[in-house]
Amino acid sequence: MSLLGLVSLVGAGPGSPDYLTLKGLRRLQEADVVFHDALVTDAVLAFAEDAEYIDVGKRGHRESTAQNVIEAAMITASRQGLRVVRLKGGDPFVFGRGGEEALALAAAGIPFEVVPGVSAAIAAPALGGIPVTHRGVAPGVLVVNGSLLDDFERVIAGIAPGSITVVVMMGLRNRGAIAAALAESGWADQTPAAIVLGASTDGEWTWRGPLADLEHADIGDREQPGTIVVGAVAALRLESPRKLEVMGVAHVGA
Amino acid sequence: MSLLGLVSLVGAGPGSPDYLTLKGLRRLQEADVVFHDALVTDAVLAFAEDAEYIDVGKRGHRESTAQNVIEAAMITASRQGLRVVRLKGGDPFVFGRGGEEALALAAAGIPFEVVPGVSAAIAAPALGGIPVTHRGVAPGVLVVNGSLLDDFERVIAGIAPGSITVVVMMGLRNRGAIAAALAESGWADQTPAAIVLGASTDGEWTWRGPLADLEHADIGDREQPGTIVVGAVAALRLESPRKLEVMGVAHVGA
Repeated sequence: MSLLGLVSLVGAGPGSPDYLTLKGLRRLQEADVVFHDALVTDAVLAFAEDAEYIDVGKRGHRESTAQNVIEAAMITASRQGLRVVRLKGGDPFVFGRGGEEALALAAAGIPFEVVPGVSAAIAAPALGGIPVTHRGVAPGVLVVNGSLLDDFERVIAGIAPGSITVVVMMGLRNRGAIAAALAESGWADQTPAAIVLGASTDGEWTWRGPLADLEHADIGDREQPGTIVVGAVAALRLESPRKLEVMGVAHVGA
Repeated sequence: MSLLGLVSLVGAGPGSPDYLTLKGLRRLQEADVVFHDALVTDAVLAFAEDAEYIDVGKRGHRESTAQNVIEAAMITASRQGLRVVRLKGGDPFVFGRGGEEALALAAAGIPFEVVPGVSAAIAAPALGGIPVTHRGVAPGVLVVNGSLLDDFERVIAGIAPGSITVVVMMGLRNRGAIAAALAESGWADQTPAAIVLGASTDGEWTWRGPLADLEHADIGDREQPGTIVVGAVAALRLESPRKLEVMGVAHVGA
């Protein structure tokens, strides 16, 4: 039984190791080399004790490794018989380009597997106290990429305003244009909205307000990845009574 | 530091313990009592070695425990100082009624936390070789409940046919009506579709075909939970070359 030469496309979850899966953990522990995105946290990477780390990520507009270079490097590592993990923030198939990488590996005859992860599309709102679906409030959720405005506008154009939850990934920089496009499509100014930054990490921080204020939401100089939620569920605030956080573990006081 | 009285709303993932999170594992190991849905697998439950299990789930049209009874039982257990896990298939906030339970707990002054899980909405297609988003093919994904047809029809009515991936949860029994509603909204007969059953379990099984054939897709007498995927991505088939599965671990042969 051997993993030699196998490429595992692993979802790292939203940030904290708490949300890594058991299979993701095993693959990291066994890895010889880990190709990771910029958004993967050091705390998750640390499980790959015996591996070489290669940062191939991009963050915002900074320079990143070209997709074909990443794919070629994974293919080379596999052919050397190494156990390869391709570690992506969240889930590999939610705007993670995992599909493209899987196709490239298949075309090169490289064995691979997909290890789904906890997507920030669902977990970031949840950790901010917002359920993406809620009976009687949101019968569905649309997850859309906010970095490509043409796509965004096309996707949301037909949706009945307020009928479902809209979760926008990678949309922080474009939040003004996103809010404008929703308003243009008939979404009310007062539709509840939220931004969850750094979900599951020490820097977790949530902004809430009406859609009309989304453009000017003050997120300071926070550079964590952010998830935007628009829809009635964003007005829910599922907060535990009497909860204290001590060293990351919920502590229930007297 | 104590978890006494804390209610943890934990997502169990799609079925296999492989996709349980590290925090979910810890909570199960520490639990005194686990209230679980019918869809949670024995393999995941087995981590709660010291706990009493209470099955409160429903499956299809069989009898289930009323929501208010579940909530009252969790509140009672919490007040007895027990460490309570509410274990749900997938993620608690994707059609899991986790939001309702969190609100009920908060109203009763019961401390709780949400532990997001790997949602079958994303993981089931992924394990069936289908990425729910794919650059140039699907710039977004809509996740919708197929058990409530009125909601389903209302949600998909405005969406430009074929513009995004539609993932339908709990829609197997209604797949004829679901296909009809999509056709009525202008989705082409030949739009790729898929059904993934029992994702991540030994009974994992995938049907693929055009939307026109969805109604009569022969799923035999399979009773596993199923996820329907409609959209261009369902034509993708991300399959590893030379992959052998030996005891659940990918074995790469010569």
